[in-house]
Amino acid sequence: MDRNHELYMRKALEEARAAAEEGEIPVGAVVVCRNKIIARSHNQTERLGDVTAHAEMLAVTMASSSLGGKYLNDCTLYVTLEPCTMCAGALAWAQLGRLIYGAPDPERGYSRLSPAPLHPKTEVISGVLEQENSALLKAFFKTRR
Amino acid sequence: MDRNHELYMRKALEEARAAAEEGEIPVGAVVVCRNKIIARSHNQTERLGDVTAHAEMLAVTMASSSLGGKYLNDCTLYVTLEPCTMCAGALAWAQLGRLIYGAPDPERGYSRLSPAPLHPKTEVISGVLEQENSALLKAFFKTRR
Repeated sequence: MDRNHELYMRKALEEARAAAEEGEIPVGAVVVCRNKIIARSHNQTERLGDVTAHAEMLAVTMASSSLGGKYLNDCTLYVTLEPCTMCAGALAWAQLGRLIYGAPDPERGYSRLSPAPLHPKTEVISGVLEQENSALLKAFFKTRR
Repeated sequence: MDRNHELYMRKALEEARAAAEEGEIPVGAVVVCRNKIIARSHNQTERLGDVTAHAEMLAVTMASSSLGGKYLNDCTLYVTLEPCTMCAGALAWAQLGRLIYGAPDPERGYSRLSPAPLHPKTEVISGVLEQENSALLKAFFKTRR
């Protein structure tokens, strides 16, 4: 495993922990472009009362704003959980260069869908810090039941 | 056809025309809740430089803000074009009561996807003012080539 992948995924995990502290489902994301973090975000659906405020959506908006353009071909998105249908659709429109995610999401994840909703040129790596990312989600849902 | 459907779709079409005037792909949307328009929006991806700024996404955010809650079970979304994967995913999270769209989108529309990305309880009506909605899109793309 590329050590940088773990390093950046740890930044995404920090964001996910911040979400948990705010009572949000703990998902965090960072966008890296030419070895620089240009966006970091976490789920804010509860605080904003808005289902569209997933970590990935906020990250895409921030990254585009940072770059001054809406395409993210040269960027890597690190996210702690497999993106949902909505987020995968956004990543496709953004022509994301690379998606790296932590834990799989068998119920809501985009990889259930056919045809594949990501852009055909987006490279995908899964399972980075999977245990830690999954553990954070499980612990969160345990306290909420 | 319910006359109200045409009436509200005309409001969405007005929004789509406003988008065209701004150089945006002409898609417009309105959200109706208990016979009242609580959100109206049009595509703003170019102006905002943000692929997530589709008419439907903006409409969901506005409607949630207007209602003070993130679920749109009692709402109808009127949109001039069949929603894409991203927007369908957002409508699913919002548990939208009813989706009414104008023109089909065979290339980018959500209905190509399996399993169906909308919420299972969302009622769908398609083809409202289809001719006018399609004509506006065709005219727009003709001037851009």
